[in-house]
Amino acid sequence: MNSEKTAVVLLSGGMDSAVVLAIARGAGFACEALSFDYGQRHRHELEAARRVAAALGAKGHTVLPIDMRAIGGSALTADIDVPKDRDDIGEGIPITYVPARNTIFLSYALALAEVKGARDIFIGVNALDYSGYPDCRPEYIAAYERMANLATKASVESEAALKIHSPLSEMRKADIVREGAELGVDFAMTHSCYDPDAEGGSCGRCDACVLRLKGFEEAGMTDPLPYPA
Amino acid sequence: MNSEKTAVVLLSGGMDSAVVLAIARGAGFACEALSFDYGQRHRHELEAARRVAAALGAKGHTVLPIDMRAIGGSALTADIDVPKDRDDIGEGIPITYVPARNTIFLSYALALAEVKGARDIFIGVNALDYSGYPDCRPEYIAAYERMANLATKASVESEAALKIHSPLSEMRKADIVREGAELGVDFAMTHSCYDPDAEGGSCGRCDACVLRLKGFEEAGMTDPLPYPA
Repeated sequence: MNSEKTAVVLLSGGMDSAVVLAIARGAGFACEALSFDYGQRHRHELEAARRVAAALGAKGHTVLPIDMRAIGGSALTADIDVPKDRDDIGEGIPITYVPARNTIFLSYALALAEVKGARDIFIGVNALDYSGYPDCRPEYIAAYERMANLATKASVESEAALKIHSPLSEMRKADIVREGAELGVDFAMTHSCYDPDAEGGSCGRCDACVLRLKGFEEAGMTDPLPYPA
Repeated sequence: MNSEKTAVVLLSGGMDSAVVLAIARGAGFACEALSFDYGQRHRHELEAARRVAAALGAKGHTVLPIDMRAIGGSALTADIDVPKDRDDIGEGIPITYVPARNTIFLSYALALAEVKGARDIFIGVNALDYSGYPDCRPEYIAAYERMANLATKASVESEAALKIHSPLSEMRKADIVREGAELGVDFAMTHSCYDPDAEGGSCGRCDACVLRLKGFEEAGMTDPLPYPA
């Protein structure tokens, strides 16, 4: 079977992008997973990404070292404490915001798509739970897609338009949990916590852990990851 | 004087981006130069970028290591011979095309602009001499600017629109030479050759050398760089 279309799938190792990879595979795409080693403090994510790519049958998995530290400006890459026990998740722009992160990630995905002959890129942005991140909004993704269709050799030479898929965009965390469960995603393989020093891997108190746990709770399911008591 | 607006200027070490930096300085911007060490074979460019940034009074100069080799697909980063003595420069998409290169470069510039509080980005793309590169065209730059204005925290919080300046866009190489000479750019500091092994630094026969020499000739000036006899 050589008739599968190829897609590039941004894979962080978190829950959301694992579900996106399962969705892309379910839609019949041969998937080239792309992860970044961007000096993040939560490197557990990269190990999770490798497990998830293998488990969900990605055709290839590229891990690109990119140096965001030279640019600075975020708790995920600079030496700022990861906030915990916040009661204002989703309001304003969080300290964990990384400048132009999705723009940089999508740009590498675009380059890899060109080299692999893919005209489809999947990204797990979510406009509801992450409303504080400008580069998770549908209007941003649409503008990126328009730009990408003018950016590359394939955009000049190919008949097929380049498409940026963001299937989670309008889903609540609970819907993402349910969708992943239906598609057979093993959530025990994924990693969400922002705190690199969390015992057992997950602190249960940073924004990422809180949103994840809330999602499982609302879906009426149990998160298979271990959390501190 | 703290009233200068800050701009991020993409600086390759080549002739064009040196002229762009001089234009941005002439327009009164405090300039944060940004160069990339992207595994290119013509690393002479980076040394040239450092000289040019200092000589033209850039406020800062960030050199970001980025790994394009993991993605591959071009004579500038992969192990493909640099073409020489071509008689079809400007026709079709050249082998020296790097997938999504300007998209990646501009994305890092956008991140640096956010961190430095800049709302202006300068890039030395040229739509005439480099018509084969899709990501040098004005419609691409306009689409990038629209996307960038939806991409970042500043785009949400700031009144000022983010502007991508491409002052060389409609200029012929000869015009760029003249403009640079008027603004006092020392072209002896710049480096254009694609061939990393060229004796004395410049082969005189690759696309970059041929376009550069033609520009000086048409401007009625002499390129100060040494070339093989």
